[in-house]
Amino acid sequence: MSRNDAFRALGRQECLRLLAGVPVGRVIYTRQALPAVLPVNFSLDTDASVLLATSPGSDLVRAVDGTVVAFEADEFRAETRSGWSVIVTGRATVVTDPAEHERLVRTGPASWMPLRETVFVRIEAEMVTGRELRGATAGQ
Amino acid sequence: MSRNDAFRALGRQECLRLLAGVPVGRVIYTRQALPAVLPVNFSLDTDASVLLATSPGSDLVRAVDGTVVAFEADEFRAETRSGWSVIVTGRATVVTDPAEHERLVRTGPASWMPLRETVFVRIEAEMVTGRELRGATAGQ
Repeated sequence: MSRNDAFRALGRQECLRLLAGVPVGRVIYTRQALPAVLPVNFSLDTDASVLLATSPGSDLVRAVDGTVVAFEADEFRAETRSGWSVIVTGRATVVTDPAEHERLVRTGPASWMPLRETVFVRIEAEMVTGRELRGATAGQ
Repeated sequence: MSRNDAFRALGRQECLRLLAGVPVGRVIYTRQALPAVLPVNFSLDTDASVLLATSPGSDLVRAVDGTVVAFEADEFRAETRSGWSVIVTGRATVVTDPAEHERLVRTGPASWMPLRETVFVRIEAEMVTGRELRGATAGQ
């Protein structure tokens, strides 16, 4: 069985549907010239951009505002050696517009981490890729 | 409840014990100047370095050999809004020594993805950090 048989590429709509079903993903960015990653709660906005809620003073906000980041979510099952992963790549920006902030307070993501103050970070869904690993046992 | 109350920093040994209990983590690296991430099976070597099994011709091998990467694993539970994440940061190198390769064929990680040929990538555990999110419901 070749590599290509084990994996199936997912279309954009399939990727967004899978993303919408999980509460935690990971922001992939660069911090002090090193690769960095942070698990976060998120939600999808109506334009498919990824929304995160964090503290105004967080390292994440300082590191990602205005830069291109990746956002990844996945689900794997050890019993069947199967699962999926989806990656959104795009520019991250802190939401500064007061009306937009108000809208997201009502409809945006809720962090599992209690926040005294909340800022929202939006990751544009410029590139959305995903793949499904089918249960692959042959030859293993 | 402040941010500090919700999280507990994990010690190196605690991090390694948690890592040893999950089959899938994520390599965080840079590909064509953009942040990139790939979920992979892994195992821990006896010196706590992270071992991955992949194809000799994979993008991952080309992108990470000789560079500093991050490796992340986590487990979160939506019901309790709790979980943990661990990040290993260090230099990645492809295992080229034949005796070492042989040892890893016997004792190293097995990929869920069938591989015609296998190369092993080692990520040195130069920095190991982790944190636990305790179930945080107050104020949410």
